Amino acid sequence: MKIEAKGIANLSTSGNILDVYFLYINFDNKKVGEESIKVDDQKKKLIEVSWDESNLNEPVKDIEGAYLKLHLISYKFVLPNSINLDGIFNILPNVAWTNIGPVAIEDIDKRMNESKNLKNDLYVRSLDKFPCLTDYIIPKNVRIADTSRVRLGAYLSEGTTIMHEGFVNFNAGTLGKAMIEGRISAGVVIGDNSDLGGGASTMGTLSGGNEVKISVGKNCLLGANSGLGIPIGDNCTLEAGLYLTAGTKVLMLNKTSSKVVKASELSGSSDLLFYRDSTNGQVIAKVNTKVSKLNKDLHIND
Amino acid sequence: MKIEAKGIANLSTSGNILDVYFLYINFDNKKVGEESIKVDDQKKKLIEVSWDESNLNEPVKDIEGAYLKLHLISYKFVLPNSINLDGIFNILPNVAWTNIGPVAIEDIDKRMNESKNLKNDLYVRSLDKFPCLTDYIIPKNVRIADTSRVRLGAYLSEGTTIMHEGFVNFNAGTLGKAMIEGRISAGVVIGDNSDLGGGASTMGTLSGGNEVKISVGKNCLLGANSGLGIPIGDNCTLEAGLYLTAGTKVLMLNKTSSKVVKASELSGSSDLLFYRDSTNGQVIAKVNTKVSKLNKDLHIND
Amino acid sequence: MKIEAKGIANLSTSGNILDVYFLYINFDNKKVGEESIKVDDQKKKLIEVSWDESNLNEPVKDIEGAYLKLHLISYKFVLPNSINLDGIFNILPNVAWTNIGPVAIEDIDKRMNESKNLKNDLYVRSLDKFPCLTDYIIPKNVRIADTSRVRLGAYLSEGTTIMHEGFVNFNAGTLGKAMIEGRISAGVVIGDNSDLGGGASTMGTLSGGNEVKISVGKNCLLGANSGLGIPIGDNCTLEAGLYLTAGTKVLMLNKTSSKVVKASELSGSSDLLFYRDSTNGQVIAKVNTKVSKLNKDLHIND
Repeated sequence: MKIEAKGIANLSTSGNILDVYFLYINFDNKKVGEESIKVDDQKKKLIEVSWDESNLNEPVKDIEGAYLKLHLISYKFVLPNSINLDGIFNILPNVAWTNIGPVAIEDIDKRMNESKNLKNDLYVRSLDKFPCLTDYIIPKNVRIADTSRVRLGAYLSEGTTIMHEGFVNFNAGTLGKAMIEGRISAGVVIGDNSDLGGGASTMGTLSGGNEVKISVGKNCLLGANSGLGIPIGDNCTLEAGLYLTAGTKVLMLNKTSSKVVKASELSGSSDLLFYRDSTNGQVIAKVNTKVSKLNKDLHIND
Repeated sequence: MKIEAKGIANLSTSGNILDVYFLYINFDNKKVGEESIKVDDQKKKLIEVSWDESNLNEPVKDIEGAYLKLHLISYKFVLPNSINLDGIFNILPNVAWTNIGPVAIEDIDKRMNESKNLKNDLYVRSLDKFPCLTDYIIPKNVRIADTSRVRLGAYLSEGTTIMHEGFVNFNAGTLGKAMIEGRISAGVVIGDNSDLGGGASTMGTLSGGNEVKISVGKNCLLGANSGLGIPIGDNCTLEAGLYLTAGTKVLMLNKTSSKVVKASELSGSSDLLFYRDSTNGQVIAKVNTKVSKLNKDLHIND
Repeated sequence: MKIEAKGIANLSTSGNILDVYFLYINFDNKKVGEESIKVDDQKKKLIEVSWDESNLNEPVKDIEGAYLKLHLISYKFVLPNSINLDGIFNILPNVAWTNIGPVAIEDIDKRMNESKNLKNDLYVRSLDKFPCLTDYIIPKNVRIADTSRVRLGAYLSEGTTIMHEGFVNFNAGTLGKAMIEGRISAGVVIGDNSDLGGGASTMGTLSGGNEVKISVGKNCLLGANSGLGIPIGDNCTLEAGLYLTAGTKVLMLNKTSSKVVKASELSGSSDLLFYRDSTNGQVIAKVNTKVSKLNKDLHIND
């Protein structure tokens, strides 16, 4: 496997790389963009990268490599969780993402003061190590109601709609058309035809103590304000407002027998409905008889 | 009834209409804006619409009509759910809403590349079929802390405050002064003097399976992180963190007798307090003795 | 104590002050910025303020004073809840915060119309009495993924990360490094090394009926979609999805005895784990054996 890429880096006034916009990528003979790139601006720099598979498996070593890996995921050349992103937080600098591109933290106060005295036309959209996806890549047949909520490194399949309350971290995303009104944490993937309701939470592994990567299969519905702390298979429904952590004790209802199990023991199961019995507070899982169907009108995103 | 309107459409490079900004509307002799409009720009087009009541009752036929209907709701000429919006998702194109207006999806990659090589002063705020309300109409005596969270087609009454976590979809809104820190789904209306707490969810009918339109009466309080799946009347309180779906079994406490009913059987009721008994998990409804009062200081929005 | 400050006010077309950007503050001999400021623009005005301690203890009297108090908190000269902000809602005008600075509500329609006919390069980011923190002050060693969600008047300590779903109101913030993916209401402070999970709510005192100011100690974890209605001490964990209001009846488990208490009786307690028993719906507090540790990689924000 061979990966060739060319991009434009923005530099701080002291010459440090702030970000890299890869206009051209040849990933194992699948190409995006045009190979001929000129950079005339002194505050910019041409970046050329030539990689093989080993680079994908190594930890992140420099800013160029970090940005290339994030581009590869967002261009859907590679799946989330399939390449090595170790060390990315330490490599990426914190940057002031403004309405006129990235500005170094060391430069931003001076630039702000100048703007305030003049046209007042500079402002900071984000102070972060990771930029917005759409500052680099505009995914096709996808809607993102508020672009500030999807990071570069998100993997968004065609037919996906990210509503205003939706969020997608890097190294995470949707494997088919999906309605995302909740939060997809780093490392989490959502299957085709699934619906993550408004304010729904998927537990991440970066902070908060969870160690198992969460995934959601096909035809699932996570109700509004629900939460998921285990991976689940296909055709599952989580009741609105129910937070299912790995340690939640669940009464598993079967036709002939029932028993209480930890939710983690149901990891990866399909065809389950999870809810809390509102007469006695007991969290219950039983066979799901009503499978979620997406409203087609909401996913014709052309 | 007669409706006359004039607006400016933005066009894609191939001449397709991206949006229409109606500067002048005469709705049954109630007028906004000035009738004289000139359009000199080749990428723009003058739009003139002459309607009667039948057009309001017909499904959406073209982009001009879709935008006019959304304007009519946001200018409060008509109430949410009072005009026919069928077909609007299929009619509206997905558009890149940038810091310099709408750009066609087919044109955005080229424009982005040009910007990256030059001043880097173009960015995409949203990729969506529906634009922000405030790109078209600035409602008076209203606060909207984050304008990206209110779509054109929102109906916002004077004295309404939409906080950062608030959200208002098209064909939805507030019928009086209200504090909105939660999500108003399409088709949902919130009554005067009511408070939708932080992260509170109102169940929509577009996705997720719900079929009954939710509404909230006057003087209601939906606590933070709560959720509502039935329409409710006046003077109701929903405990913070409680998600009441139509199917929730509720113990209805009365002075003399009590019985378990489905929440849907309480649809439209007034003067109820809904909470979950934290000693036994049972969801309970009883007469609400403490009616919500808005903090006046937060609603003098001039 | 002596406080000297100089700033630039933006004016409406009719000459009213819209905001004040304080470039220079000398707070009891601790200084930020440069004292020499020139203002040449007729739509701007030089503001000079000379205060002593009594001004901090008096209610807000004018826009200049409101902005200076908000700056003092965000520059961390004073702690949240330590100066008098009474009357600030009545003093601050509602303003259209655009991509080219503040515009008066009375002027915005004309400006919008002009822009729509020409380059379409004006848009409203917010309609609010309070502006974004980062339009005035860029805190160091802090990340704010979406700047629109942090108001001027937020107090953010070094090492703090505010994720996309995080929110910080004025007169509120973090007293040490913290991971904020939930909402910090006005008056609320979060201690060092604590984690406010995605969508977590802290109950405010401005609306909704709560009267006790919430605070969170050190090493606490408020799980995703949880909520807190009482102040808590150090080393506490709130289970994901649990909303603990002041009135929640909690079974306090001790080694030798157990009893049901109102959550408000546990105000200020340390070393507690709060959760809802998923087999019977009972909310329980017991000694917390697993203290939250922040992921260091996420908080090296330089």
